Amino acid sequence: MSDTQDSNAEARQKLVDLAAEFYDQFERGDIPEMTLPTRTKSNIVFDEDKHVWVYGDRTSTRSANSVRGARKLLKAAYTIEFLARQLEEDRSSTLRELYYLSESWDNEEAQFNGQDESNKLVEDLEIVSDVKREDFHMRPEESGATLIGPLELREQTRRGERVIHCQKDVGEGGYQIPNNPDTIEFLDHDIDFVMCVETGGMRDRLVENGFDTEYNCMVVHLKGQPARATRRITKRLHDELGLPVMVFTDGDPWSYRIFGSVSYGSIKSAHLSEYLATPEAQFVGIRPEDIVEYDLPTDPLGDSDVNALESELEDPRFQDEFWTEQIELQLDIGKKAEQQALAARGLDFVTETYLPERLDEMGVI
Amino acid sequence: MSDTQDSNAEARQKLVDLAAEFYDQFERGDIPEMTLPTRTKSNIVFDEDKHVWVYGDRTSTRSANSVRGARKLLKAAYTIEFLARQLEEDRSSTLRELYYLSESWDNEEAQFNGQDESNKLVEDLEIVSDVKREDFHMRPEESGATLIGPLELREQTRRGERVIHCQKDVGEGGYQIPNNPDTIEFLDHDIDFVMCVETGGMRDRLVENGFDTEYNCMVVHLKGQPARATRRITKRLHDELGLPVMVFTDGDPWSYRIFGSVSYGSIKSAHLSEYLATPEAQFVGIRPEDIVEYDLPTDPLGDSDVNALESELEDPRFQDEFWTEQIELQLDIGKKAEQQALAARGLDFVTETYLPERLDEMGVI
Repeated sequence: MSDTQDSNAEARQKLVDLAAEFYDQFERGDIPEMTLPTRTKSNIVFDEDKHVWVYGDRTSTRSANSVRGARKLLKAAYTIEFLARQLEEDRSSTLRELYYLSESWDNEEAQFNGQDESNKLVEDLEIVSDVKREDFHMRPEESGATLIGPLELREQTRRGERVIHCQKDVGEGGYQIPNNPDTIEFLDHDIDFVMCVETGGMRDRLVENGFDTEYNCMVVHLKGQPARATRRITKRLHDELGLPVMVFTDGDPWSYRIFGSVSYGSIKSAHLSEYLATPEAQFVGIRPEDIVEYDLPTDPLGDSDVNALESELEDPRFQDEFWTEQIELQLDIGKKAEQQALAARGLDFVTETYLPERLDEMGVI
Repeated sequence: MSDTQDSNAEARQKLVDLAAEFYDQFERGDIPEMTLPTRTKSNIVFDEDKHVWVYGDRTSTRSANSVRGARKLLKAAYTIEFLARQLEEDRSSTLRELYYLSESWDNEEAQFNGQDESNKLVEDLEIVSDVKREDFHMRPEESGATLIGPLELREQTRRGERVIHCQKDVGEGGYQIPNNPDTIEFLDHDIDFVMCVETGGMRDRLVENGFDTEYNCMVVHLKGQPARATRRITKRLHDELGLPVMVFTDGDPWSYRIFGSVSYGSIKSAHLSEYLATPEAQFVGIRPEDIVEYDLPTDPLGDSDVNALESELEDPRFQDEFWTEQIELQLDIGKKAEQQALAARGLDFVTETYLPERLDEMGVI
């Protein structure tokens, strides 16, 4: 518990320091302001050392020299006070609760007009304080997904410690990732590689076919666009246990974005890339070349698919030989396919042929 | 394991009987046909004995006297063969896999044109064979949600039995409900009542505030419109353990439908009402009267909200004094509110005031 207290105190201190800065600015007779990196696609740069995309040098400033700017800083001050007290009491809350809570604040000018505003402010505070939302004890609405595989972990809960083996101590549904996976400590494992799977149907197929036990594989269910908790635990499995991370999705542009969010991070949260992104993650499929090679059942690309593929071709994060080739092939054949389309070759094709062959090619097994 | 084998054999036999009926019809020189209840709102009647809504007397017939009808029965025959083999091998598959698998069938006429068609056929087979989809071993794409509360259960998995206490043996994420919750046996419990909660944010609030331990409450996360697995386990908690079931959602017409699907069942799956619906479930809130009484932060009703409320006023399932009064009040005030809007009164208001007062009024605590 003293670890928790230390980390609460540290996060709290950083918030109080922010408020103190406003105070100092006032005292010096300066107009209070807060400077943030500009959060747009054009201000994203690749950090060669860390191999992730981070914000560039362009910044924007929130200053109290206008009524609008002053109101923003007022809201920041109230939010800082709320978060500091929350950490002191070792409580937590959701982003939505923060928005509603602001209705109880005594100063009406400090209340949020909508949840977009409070969400954005919390992100701003993450950036300027260098403390993650999870360490402010702000929970997301989205819950993380599930794990199944040969890992024993210890989770620190409010009800005490739980030691859980993610195959032997869980049902077929697997282990539910908590909102803040940094409450987890990895104790022991037999994992050879991590397999992140987009859809529930395919996750269940791998589990039914015993893929995790046969290949000592940790199956992470992404459940579509993965929650922060899911991306965080994937990164920790890679960094702390030195495991290869493979991503297995549908074969369409939206699924390549899912791969991108595991591997490259997102523009909206580039300040968290170091914490959430696993740049070494590799894309298993479904690849456009698989559609051709395995003659998979497909759907035609719609207009929005074509637009998304063309936008990916221009995205700096997808500009390498592999993605250029695959995306151009897909635009050429005009088709997309789902993971479960592999069932057209039989229910065992994916675990007996497709994945073993691909993982062997990629040097993972 | 012999229980599983027995239930597989029973489901398989019912499927084979269906196919045998086609065969007998052929042999008698009759045109093969399959008769089903008409699945529309106008053919839903309230079963006074079972207290659930079921299909009425109107039926429709699929006959091989047209090419279209003959093709439907051909597809049914192929699907029956696939399902019977699946049960023999104790395998399972998803609805989507079935659709893709049909591409490998030797007779092109038997292949499905879209997943809607295969989904609907599986529902038809459920109805005529009186075997549930889960007993055909067809898994849904949607996964069930999570449980947390004072219950010890035994889950029969493909990897052997797991005994799990849904507070002591799980992390903060809770116990993940498996796709087929009939693989679960309830061993021991201290539950006084079941609380089904719509949103993840509110579920986490109850867990953080220790509501499940303080009130011996089983918290079931509905995750929006609940999956079949979630409704099934809720019904079993009610029927087998004799527990009151309370439903706690947002205060808008879509959330009343969520309550309806727990309590009354749905039109689309009225043949499963007896298996999935918990007619004794009670609605806790958010009630339109709460919006007024607690002066909750609200959003105005949109056109689609108003339409949905008006349609509920005419829905036989909502025609009682309570719902008529609440829905009319809501149309009158023109507002809706979310569960988490209770946070405007502080983070503990829901567990220290709102729920205890309401549950006391309702005679549950």
